[in-house]
Amino acid sequence: MFITCNQSDLIKTLNIVIRAVPSRSTIDILSCVVIKTIGDTINLVANDIDFGIESVLSGTVNEGGSIALGAKIFTDIVRKLPNDTVTIKTDDTLRATITCGKSVFKIAGRGTDDYPDLPEVKKDKKITISQFSLKDVINKTIFAASTNETVKILTGEYFEVSDNRLRVTALDNHRIAVHSIDLVDNNDNVKAIIPAKTLNEVSRIISGEVSENIDIYFDQRFLVFEFDDTVITSRLIEGDYIDIHKMISDDYETKVHLNRISLLEQLDSASPLITESEKKPIIFDITDKNMNLSANTSIGSLNSDMDIEKEGRDIMIGFNPHFLMDAVKAIDDETIDLYFTNQKAPCFIKDEDNSYKYVVLPVNFSTSDVE
Amino acid sequence: MFITCNQSDLIKTLNIVIRAVPSRSTIDILSCVVIKTIGDTINLVANDIDFGIESVLSGTVNEGGSIALGAKIFTDIVRKLPNDTVTIKTDDTLRATITCGKSVFKIAGRGTDDYPDLPEVKKDKKITISQFSLKDVINKTIFAASTNETVKILTGEYFEVSDNRLRVTALDNHRIAVHSIDLVDNNDNVKAIIPAKTLNEVSRIISGEVSENIDIYFDQRFLVFEFDDTVITSRLIEGDYIDIHKMISDDYETKVHLNRISLLEQLDSASPLITESEKKPIIFDITDKNMNLSANTSIGSLNSDMDIEKEGRDIMIGFNPHFLMDAVKAIDDETIDLYFTNQKAPCFIKDEDNSYKYVVLPVNFSTSDVE
Repeated sequence: MFITCNQSDLIKTLNIVIRAVPSRSTIDILSCVVIKTIGDTINLVANDIDFGIESVLSGTVNEGGSIALGAKIFTDIVRKLPNDTVTIKTDDTLRATITCGKSVFKIAGRGTDDYPDLPEVKKDKKITISQFSLKDVINKTIFAASTNETVKILTGEYFEVSDNRLRVTALDNHRIAVHSIDLVDNNDNVKAIIPAKTLNEVSRIISGEVSENIDIYFDQRFLVFEFDDTVITSRLIEGDYIDIHKMISDDYETKVHLNRISLLEQLDSASPLITESEKKPIIFDITDKNMNLSANTSIGSLNSDMDIEKEGRDIMIGFNPHFLMDAVKAIDDETIDLYFTNQKAPCFIKDEDNSYKYVVLPVNFSTSDVE
Repeated sequence: MFITCNQSDLIKTLNIVIRAVPSRSTIDILSCVVIKTIGDTINLVANDIDFGIESVLSGTVNEGGSIALGAKIFTDIVRKLPNDTVTIKTDDTLRATITCGKSVFKIAGRGTDDYPDLPEVKKDKKITISQFSLKDVINKTIFAASTNETVKILTGEYFEVSDNRLRVTALDNHRIAVHSIDLVDNNDNVKAIIPAKTLNEVSRIISGEVSENIDIYFDQRFLVFEFDDTVITSRLIEGDYIDIHKMISDDYETKVHLNRISLLEQLDSASPLITESEKKPIIFDITDKNMNLSANTSIGSLNSDMDIEKEGRDIMIGFNPHFLMDAVKAIDDETIDLYFTNQKAPCFIKDEDNSYKYVVLPVNFSTSDVE
């Protein structure tokens, strides 16, 4: 193999595909990035079995072929090269010679016969979404996905497309995040659980431009993201997702309207007092026009007030402030509505047209927790 | 004690003094910051025994007194407060009430009787230097100070003032860094070894403004930095520093003139191939108008050329590229001169008016290390 490209194109494409190189793997060759030519096209590939990326590198094929190069050393070398023409040439002993300006590097490579192929995906169903919307909907929900591998389906996000509306749901034992967006026409109806790890990587790789679209294809077991010169393939999580929309009701006894940033600052100011080990709550005492926040822990205490508008009954309720902050941070609106039923029932935050809904479970508290 | 101040002033002063709070200490109370009033002045103090900082906090003393507050929790709370008026009030049980806007925090404090005083320094000698020059001279030498505590004097920097010229020297087993600057008149002659840890903290705290001066006072065992509203006290390292100026000669056989950034890029491009454990050198093969750089390690090889101007004999010599890079990075000049004697003798880099001199020891190499 003998190829010619620019250092800036090479590092850009490498930075995309190396996101699929596993940090640890029992299969040694997965620590490599594959460079392979297909006709006049140069492709870079990395593959973590459940998750793979293939991206086209702009450049010239002088002589066809393929090589697997250690992802770390190859990236380290390319990153430090000047922005100039780079040639990569392999010899019969699978040694790669990387030349740029007056510098000549030689590193050992490997054959690509043992490198696993990315799965063939049947493209049964297709949806199209702007890169901006996909990145946005991921960032606004993914924090609620569970990190506990024992309940596999909760480590993913549930993507439901119905009548050109996408609803994304993530949840763990403490909270639920749901966001919905309208897609443009001609999308297939889809129900799929996508690993949160895959969505995190996709969110990092895509530009987030409103004008750039991304096509997502699904079959029974895999999905494929196609955009720009890149194809990302991921296994889906098998199983049935929890139908939370039947479980959570929109009924409430108390509705609170308040400034989102003020609430965020109040919750954040309490966080130095709250430790994971002690698990003390922050307590809201909600009366007309005022919400009193208090916490009382082994570190110290806080008592604070904020202006609100309230409909319905007074209520006193405790929360883990971090779970509430995650939800409040993910919203863009200047003011938000919080809905409460009683001390034991979930609180929810939603907008009027149901584009988002966050549910947070309350925490029990005793009178000594109130400052 | 009852004081009133602004959050922005409080966090600014806290951020300075907490640099003297030890990250671990057998003396528990040293994990606190002391707030104490002296007449109408509020002082914040932290003290690591060998190194202490006292800084004036702008504000009003409503009632005199003192308190020691856990540095971490106090800083965490203050950092998250809005930029508004803060009051701190203590009660008979040494509990501190921190109020800002509608928020009221209460944390446990301690009495200050057990908190050690900063040492009294006699101010026998004084020098004055701009904050810019002090920061600059520290940053250009400190990387060469030893981190090996077994030879205590080498963990400091040697400050020599003679005839209003300051010379700062740092060295370990592999390299030497020397920088000299002219001070304005009326400085005492000084010889002192200042702990590198102290200088690192001072360099971080001072603004680096050319127009702002800093006064440094010395007695036999301590020194004091005085600037703005802050006093930093540090123990000196006792002992005699090595007189390296008698040891290193200015004689050479080969002088190389080259572009500093080009050399830095070449050395940096080799760094992915060099590991601490393998200790392979980068080899310079210096001939007329050309310097060939090569490295050959278990990871791969590099061969590269750069344009130079040479006087004197051809030479081939090996270096740890990281030690050479540290020195080359610390210089501001566009072009630099490297001086060599033979394969076993130190290389030095200096400018014509002797404002800086860096000495780096070469590394042995075998023919297999040359690519």
